[in-house]
Amino acid sequence: MKLVSYQSFGQARFGAVIGAGIVDMARASAALAATDAAIRPLPATIEPFLAQTDVLDASARAVVTAAEAGALDLYCLPLDGTVLLPPVPRPTKIICVARNYAEHAREAGLQISDIPILFPRFANTQIGQGAPIVVPAVSHQLDWEGELAVVLGRGSHGRRIGKAEAMDLVYGYTIFNDVSVRDYQFRVTQYTGGKNFRHSGPCGPYLVTKDEIADPHKVQIVTRINGVLKQSANTDTMIFDIPTILEHIADFIDLEAGDLIPTGTPAGVGFKRNPPEFLKDGDVIEVEVTGLGILRNPVVNEAVI
Amino acid sequence: MKLVSYQSFGQARFGAVIGAGIVDMARASAALAATDAAIRPLPATIEPFLAQTDVLDASARAVVTAAEAGALDLYCLPLDGTVLLPPVPRPTKIICVARNYAEHAREAGLQISDIPILFPRFANTQIGQGAPIVVPAVSHQLDWEGELAVVLGRGSHGRRIGKAEAMDLVYGYTIFNDVSVRDYQFRVTQYTGGKNFRHSGPCGPYLVTKDEIADPHKVQIVTRINGVLKQSANTDTMIFDIPTILEHIADFIDLEAGDLIPTGTPAGVGFKRNPPEFLKDGDVIEVEVTGLGILRNPVVNEAVI
Repeated sequence: MKLVSYQSFGQARFGAVIGAGIVDMARASAALAATDAAIRPLPATIEPFLAQTDVLDASARAVVTAAEAGALDLYCLPLDGTVLLPPVPRPTKIICVARNYAEHAREAGLQISDIPILFPRFANTQIGQGAPIVVPAVSHQLDWEGELAVVLGRGSHGRRIGKAEAMDLVYGYTIFNDVSVRDYQFRVTQYTGGKNFRHSGPCGPYLVTKDEIADPHKVQIVTRINGVLKQSANTDTMIFDIPTILEHIADFIDLEAGDLIPTGTPAGVGFKRNPPEFLKDGDVIEVEVTGLGILRNPVVNEAVI
Repeated sequence: MKLVSYQSFGQARFGAVIGAGIVDMARASAALAATDAAIRPLPATIEPFLAQTDVLDASARAVVTAAEAGALDLYCLPLDGTVLLPPVPRPTKIICVARNYAEHAREAGLQISDIPILFPRFANTQIGQGAPIVVPAVSHQLDWEGELAVVLGRGSHGRRIGKAEAMDLVYGYTIFNDVSVRDYQFRVTQYTGGKNFRHSGPCGPYLVTKDEIADPHKVQIVTRINGVLKQSANTDTMIFDIPTILEHIADFIDLEAGDLIPTGTPAGVGFKRNPPEFLKDGDVIEVEVTGLGILRNPVVNEAVI
């Protein structure tokens, strides 16, 4: 399934992509449930769905099957013209991995670590497909970082987990563009500011359930700016694979349904190029990951008001 | 007002301290609203209240006044025996300030920065009054950090703010004990792991509204372990005051109602003592801040199951 969050009258709603349309999961599941007791009504937003994927996944799949058969057109709207939000507008946590590709660590002049280096992002830095990335008035050092991101569903037992069971927590994958303001990132030891600027976290376009991705450690991440290739690497070159990252996080904190974990960017970012390159007003940046679609965002200058 | 979140049948509920009791804000306000159209029903949990303090504060105060007059005993329960949760169980964001007292930076052997150093905490690391701080199985380097924390209410306009208007966003204050696992904190450049261990973020006991604190920059922070004084400093020795911290955060991210901002710890932590001191099974740690009460937590070893 390709799940989305979309905007309807200013609110986030939970949908699935069906051809060139979106089926609204709450409305469609309510209609199906009226005649089929096996269908559970789905929530209006994706976060409570992720918290109960163990009991709700089958109903979501039934909605998608019925919608694909044309039985739920009343509850569908066209994808074109609909505002997509980040697939998980309010993740329980966003935990990003730094320096997870050796070549990127080298270009940045940073040491490879023997454990994953993690930094948090706040939910409200996220933007969805097509929404503008904003060059802030206080810095022009806005850099790109295309990444594969993991979304967790129900399944955590709230304590440490081993690598063998880690993938059971994963519900699906999406694309994250970990746009970074480099001068703020390196002004102090902690990345918090540089990694949490307004409108700096494009995510999407979809949450693709894991059954559609044969091996997340064998997908290609490609970043283009105005059509020019900037990053291209396979996730088989990650330093810490997804089970290792999840095991390490669960060493200190409970993993939870709704967590979003961008797994790091490969080589090809802008700030260490010669000369350095940054995102600027009028650019269009695309991050493509095999099986996950293309996350595309324009870049605009901050409106100073 | 001294506002609390308390546990009732496994759920968080929103209350206010009245003498030796707690009045349940949703139930009491519903009762008052039945005969007084000026009273707005209050939500069952504190987060939606913080999101609307501009319209709900007056009703909360009316509930407290009526409860103090004995008119709402039906909606009160004794404080003793009630499980207090962190005052804001699910803050919109938790942004902590590092090295905000010169003496503490010196003892830690760290440079003073020209801008605030910020690191995030995740909401589920928080624990309430009386809940055990856990010495993790993977480290014994569990250290204390008593702090004054700021809670934001409705009032942010979602963009940059100047120092002059910053205090308008503050709804109240609470105590935070930023318990840190030092080896994890310094294993890699980012503090994420060391500052986000399970059960490592005592907060409370109350959210005290700002009208009760004459000057947050003139309160004393005192930390005691088993009754022995470990930290004692006045917030007038902060390097970055609250308006400066808020202005800096709003430089990159929107401040939101429900944000919790611990403002840094003074000198007297354990890891640079000679010999180093850490929290251990059986300890009881108290952090007291003028006007905010005493945040008291026992320390236990992690149950290895």
